[in-house]
Amino acid sequence: MTVELVRASAHDADVLFAARVSTLGEQTLAHAPEANEPGGVEAEHKRDRGLINYLMQGRHGSPFEHNSMTFYVRAPIFVFREFMRHRIASYNEESGRYRELGPVFYVPASDRHLVQVGKPGAYDFLPGSAEQTALVQQQTRAAAIHAYESYQRMLEAGIAREVARIVLPLNIYSSMYVTMNARALMNFLSLRTKREGTQFPSFPQREIEMCAEQMEEHFRTLMPLTYDAFNANGRVAP
Amino acid sequence: MTVELVRASAHDADVLFAARVSTLGEQTLAHAPEANEPGGVEAEHKRDRGLINYLMQGRHGSPFEHNSMTFYVRAPIFVFREFMRHRIASYNEESGRYRELGPVFYVPASDRHLVQVGKPGAYDFLPGSAEQTALVQQQTRAAAIHAYESYQRMLEAGIAREVARIVLPLNIYSSMYVTMNARALMNFLSLRTKREGTQFPSFPQREIEMCAEQMEEHFRTLMPLTYDAFNANGRVAP
Amino acid sequence: MTVELVRASAHDADVLFAARVSTLGEQTLAHAPEANEPGGVEAEHKRDRGLINYLMQGRHGSPFEHNSMTFYVRAPIFVFREFMRHRIASYNEESGRYRELGPVFYVPASDRHLVQVGKPGAYDFLPGSAEQTALVQQQTRAAAIHAYESYQRMLEAGIAREVARIVLPLNIYSSMYVTMNARALMNFLSLRTKREGTQFPSFPQREIEMCAEQMEEHFRTLMPLTYDAFNANGRVAP
Amino acid sequence: MTVELVRASAHDADVLFAARVSTLGEQTLAHAPEANEPGGVEAEHKRDRGLINYLMQGRHGSPFEHNSMTFYVRAPIFVFREFMRHRIASYNEESGRYRELGPVFYVPASDRHLVQVGKPGAYDFLPGSAEQTALVQQQTRAAAIHAYESYQRMLEAGIAREVARIVLPLNIYSSMYVTMNARALMNFLSLRTKREGTQFPSFPQREIEMCAEQMEEHFRTLMPLTYDAFNANGRVAP
Repeated sequence: MTVELVRASAHDADVLFAARVSTLGEQTLAHAPEANEPGGVEAEHKRDRGLINYLMQGRHGSPFEHNSMTFYVRAPIFVFREFMRHRIASYNEESGRYRELGPVFYVPASDRHLVQVGKPGAYDFLPGSAEQTALVQQQTRAAAIHAYESYQRMLEAGIAREVARIVLPLNIYSSMYVTMNARALMNFLSLRTKREGTQFPSFPQREIEMCAEQMEEHFRTLMPLTYDAFNANGRVAP
Repeated sequence: MTVELVRASAHDADVLFAARVSTLGEQTLAHAPEANEPGGVEAEHKRDRGLINYLMQGRHGSPFEHNSMTFYVRAPIFVFREFMRHRIASYNEESGRYRELGPVFYVPASDRHLVQVGKPGAYDFLPGSAEQTALVQQQTRAAAIHAYESYQRMLEAGIAREVARIVLPLNIYSSMYVTMNARALMNFLSLRTKREGTQFPSFPQREIEMCAEQMEEHFRTLMPLTYDAFNANGRVAP
Repeated sequence: MTVELVRASAHDADVLFAARVSTLGEQTLAHAPEANEPGGVEAEHKRDRGLINYLMQGRHGSPFEHNSMTFYVRAPIFVFREFMRHRIASYNEESGRYRELGPVFYVPASDRHLVQVGKPGAYDFLPGSAEQTALVQQQTRAAAIHAYESYQRMLEAGIAREVARIVLPLNIYSSMYVTMNARALMNFLSLRTKREGTQFPSFPQREIEMCAEQMEEHFRTLMPLTYDAFNANGRVAP
Repeated sequence: MTVELVRASAHDADVLFAARVSTLGEQTLAHAPEANEPGGVEAEHKRDRGLINYLMQGRHGSPFEHNSMTFYVRAPIFVFREFMRHRIASYNEESGRYRELGPVFYVPASDRHLVQVGKPGAYDFLPGSAEQTALVQQQTRAAAIHAYESYQRMLEAGIAREVARIVLPLNIYSSMYVTMNARALMNFLSLRTKREGTQFPSFPQREIEMCAEQMEEHFRTLMPLTYDAFNANGRVAP
């Protein structure tokens, strides 16, 4: 899974700015973040942290929307299928109608847990045996090669790309740009990662979680106070 | 492609009701559709038609939202991939994580045009030769069988469903419920059908158009005045 | 505040139907709710309740979207201003551009708490003194009469309605239709009511809460299992 | 009306980048905009313009979403009421519950057309007479002063801000931050400006159009190719 942060306009200061218009109104613009505050920089930082935590706790979500992060994601189609169910985001994906797709397929790594136990919706996954691991790797490779040959055969016979591609498997890689704001991203993370201390635990498929973890790392770097408040409040998106 | 209308609360009268609150305010509720109007039923019908046409023409979209249609759709995954890019709708789909998927695959019928000509984004499709048609049917069948055997082999070896399914091809059938209002449906139809007289022509893949055509037929029956106004105004969603 | 349920297509069965497509796929349609289930009606009812609770707890929100409720709401403009910040809903409101607004104004009742104590964002409200109550009632009435006379004077002089109306106060009544699904409604209720046992307490203005309470009552009647699960899980929308 | 561009991450290049992922897939990132192209910079510029026009014409809307513009807007409440009906945007507004609102009111300027002629939904506005203009200015001022005195009287008597504010008129100024992407902004402009050459003419209230015109000017500067394509294709948002 590849996740690159292509472009971001996302800072904790954006949250503060938007939130303070409620209480400061037309003075917000004058009240630049660098303005001198009673108590100096440290006191100001503490107030900022407190305000962001207050917003998160009270589920005042709109101040977390005035920002934007664009990611380039390269992942198999079965991951994109889950990803695009998140509707508060903008997507553009590589098109199998407009271009010939390349022969790059996802094969589960040896450390991918392969055996599910437990109830639907709350599965636990355990490591597979050596035989199971070998089987999965062999089958996913063989199926991919077989399908891709079929795809090529049809293209060579002059069949339209949009028709030929229908034989390709769900583990073929695709790529997309996705743009989200921090509020939407927190909702995504709350559902697509499995973490201790989560108010409402989720059980995502491991492969989308691998994407989510990379996005989370970018988010943590860009908006550290917002990120801390998200974690401190049970990882529920405001 | 199967499309069934599972449930609908969608009538032209809903549009009129919502629109008239603008001009009648608190009297709307009293002003029931069956109320006696000057000029009788025929004149009233003409006024209704005129109001809906006026709304469509002026892109007053919100009155077209106070209604709801739920469809059951059974189609291949490559169709669902395009479908779910429409974000103003509600989806629930069969899950390859929670259940074993059945061996039902889409094979293009003999009348499916297979050869594309023209520029990207505005392709025309022409019938394939007998050889091309035979090749497509043979390849899509063979690839499906091969992939499904691989899927079965992994399931039998105790591999989790969510892992085994990644070898399945894009032409396997899935099923879902989708709920939309008329405004969102018109947007869907404007982009997923190819019709004469369309203000902004679209070039959808034939298979999603086959779904769209069935949805359009339900829409036409449920909301005939709205449907006529949609067509009369270039099939641009308001 | 007037809230009437104009039309609804909203049942717990819709939630179950949509959720079961995940695990039953194409058999859902056949699997009608009245089908004979092992254990009879009572066991089925228990299973239904369990499934809805499971969905709510795991924040599987999409099954709660395949339904629709349309309300007619009559309330002052300052309530509509808060209401329309909820974006997952459809609105049509009486227009001050298209019609002359009637002289109906909101005057706080004697039991409306008038004095705020505590911190911003978490105020408590206490009853006003007899003098305070009298002042509020006298001032809101007098201001309304004065403003409405100004409005009338301009209309009589041939001024356009959209200009004349700008003198009208925020407590003038307006009316609208609003359509929501159960998921959006639960989000609305979680933010616009103040209840014991709420995971993330909110502090709504009392007048919008008066609308929300009436909507909640309709919701409780239409979808009792969903409503119970909402309350049992901290009144957090899934 | 004050509109300031607070922050923007919005360039024509973002549109091109997102669109090209469809046809270039994983090579998009490598294919930086400054890359050497056959035909040099001029030919490249022509290709860019052509692609953006093609997207607009074919209503391929999603590439126009990977960008973000945040505006600070100061305008009367009756303008905000219309503004916030646009749901694909993020808002934070000055709160009459959390702060005391200042006595700043909108009074129509002498060149504001005051007399409406024509049919509902397609009014034309003509200049008022000297008497009409004087009346409007006198009445809006007097009503504002009267209402604000009432507001002050209640605040001084210890009445909560959220109650006292209900007497304030619709022409009192408020301020907000609003964040949109280019696609949402084009939709806003198509409905809130009145221009020659518009495919579906709109008839906005003049005061929101004054905001829209300032936003349009920022948009034109930030994304000139997108802006040209919007105008060349009838000002219909893609």
